[in-house]
Amino acid sequence: MDELLREVVLPRLGNRWLDDLGDAALLPRPAGEIAFTTDGFVVQPLFFPGGDIGRLAVCGTVNDLAVMGADPLWLSLGMVLEEGLLIETLARILDSAAAAAAEAGVAVVTGDTKVVAKGQADGLYLTTAGIGALRADRPRGVQEIRPGDALLLSGTVADHGLSVMLQRTPGVASALESDVAPLGGLVRALLEAVTGDVLFLRDPTRGGLAGVAADLAARTGLRLTLFEPAIPVRREVRYAADLLGLDPLSVANEGKVVAVVRPDAANRALAALRAHPFGRAASLAGRFGAERDGLCELETFSGGRRIVSKPYGEDLPRIC
Amino acid sequence: MDELLREVVLPRLGNRWLDDLGDAALLPRPAGEIAFTTDGFVVQPLFFPGGDIGRLAVCGTVNDLAVMGADPLWLSLGMVLEEGLLIETLARILDSAAAAAAEAGVAVVTGDTKVVAKGQADGLYLTTAGIGALRADRPRGVQEIRPGDALLLSGTVADHGLSVMLQRTPGVASALESDVAPLGGLVRALLEAVTGDVLFLRDPTRGGLAGVAADLAARTGLRLTLFEPAIPVRREVRYAADLLGLDPLSVANEGKVVAVVRPDAANRALAALRAHPFGRAASLAGRFGAERDGLCELETFSGGRRIVSKPYGEDLPRIC
Repeated sequence: MDELLREVVLPRLGNRWLDDLGDAALLPRPAGEIAFTTDGFVVQPLFFPGGDIGRLAVCGTVNDLAVMGADPLWLSLGMVLEEGLLIETLARILDSAAAAAAEAGVAVVTGDTKVVAKGQADGLYLTTAGIGALRADRPRGVQEIRPGDALLLSGTVADHGLSVMLQRTPGVASALESDVAPLGGLVRALLEAVTGDVLFLRDPTRGGLAGVAADLAARTGLRLTLFEPAIPVRREVRYAADLLGLDPLSVANEGKVVAVVRPDAANRALAALRAHPFGRAASLAGRFGAERDGLCELETFSGGRRIVSKPYGEDLPRIC
Repeated sequence: MDELLREVVLPRLGNRWLDDLGDAALLPRPAGEIAFTTDGFVVQPLFFPGGDIGRLAVCGTVNDLAVMGADPLWLSLGMVLEEGLLIETLARILDSAAAAAAEAGVAVVTGDTKVVAKGQADGLYLTTAGIGALRADRPRGVQEIRPGDALLLSGTVADHGLSVMLQRTPGVASALESDVAPLGGLVRALLEAVTGDVLFLRDPTRGGLAGVAADLAARTGLRLTLFEPAIPVRREVRYAADLLGLDPLSVANEGKVVAVVRPDAANRALAALRAHPFGRAASLAGRFGAERDGLCELETFSGGRRIVSKPYGEDLPRIC
């Protein structure tokens, strides 16, 4: 275990905290309130176009902090390894986690490794936790959302979920890429561009855009209308979703953000999102209406309307 | 998943942070520097005399914070559940985790649950991370240890490891109890009793007392002598260790602390430990000598001497 740490983990993820190998990392006092989150990762396969479980584990936790309006600072990484996992496989995953951490500007400061016998895990499982510094300009909260407020989407939907699902579909060779990415920079750009006018942020992972939108309608008690033509879906993603019988709106993303902003701020917010590499296809994808029925509806391409419900159960097991 | 959260998890672990079910818990600014740690738990069986994986997961992370000289505050809990795990089993484990958290004075403020198919985990795996507030009177560091300094042990060794191992030994019925316990209170009592004279603290988990002692000798470069008659071992633990061919000094504990203190402070430190329910059998178990060979030796009952080495490999897989 010592050898694994010193020869495989530390050369990749090492920093002045992790290198200590103490029982805990000793960190400076944060500037204000903090955000704390955790996420487990059991994705199968471990590698998929556009990412792998290492990148996913770092981005997932970074994004949970970012959408709470916190600047991500420090991560922990717990690994459960199945006996027989190749060191080269682990090394590739850690290389990828390290690259994602560098991209996100965070450090993995503490970790743990457990090994279980063959057949007691599926390659490896990762659990990250993260600490972020809450920003003064963080979202004001769902309770502030009013009729007329705009729902923005930072880009195409369903890339991650379909990328992973296609890897598991026999007879299909696909290079459809996951969107897995750290969103701290994009969120910061948005918060700085329209300070005070961001009411809510969420990364639409499990349950997809539909899950977030239906939940927002229910929590605000307002009608939320999504505009299908304003929800970008890659052509190959739409094709893959048809093939698998899935609704792209309900499929997980790992590099997108949903934002609710004041109507006046929508254009400036979109400009800020579009100026960032992860927000080029940002759109005004929905709007809260005056009807107090807590429903989410979709205005379709053809001008029809249908109710958008919270996806029931898990369409897609082990996509993250 | 929502149902599991609302009906099984929140009624047991809920608090104002966890109940929010946000992407991250928003926590007040800590009073000073912080400690951050993580640990994974894959113990088998999930229940053993004296504890279970839930109590272990809370205590393990609380203790890692405590021995760094931090007051444990907030925990995260990540769960990987194997499909088919009984809800009653999960509920018992969460009850136990909640009781341990209450005993330790910490709150589980954020969590995550993933489900994998039958045969892709072994019941459940837990990963906790924790944040603590660093105390001003925290241990001064290994670099401060000098010849003459005393090594204190808070009680009997090997209870946890042997309790779990015996549960896995066919044909043996044992009620040998694990010592799994949260050590924040015991450590605080010690630090307050001999402020400035505590140089090092560690909970001797994997590798046991031998692992910690051999590591201390190597890191200080000093001879460290352990006194076998001063290392309390329960009679039934000694018997079980003989049966399994294990050295109790190398077996994991989950409710003990090893402390290095200045010679003058040793008696006051022992009195403070013994006044606490988890430190009643505390002893002066070793002393650093002037020989600069970085070796750890054991003075045996019979007056002999033997070298104590860092246990090689894992005697005991999946004991935590």
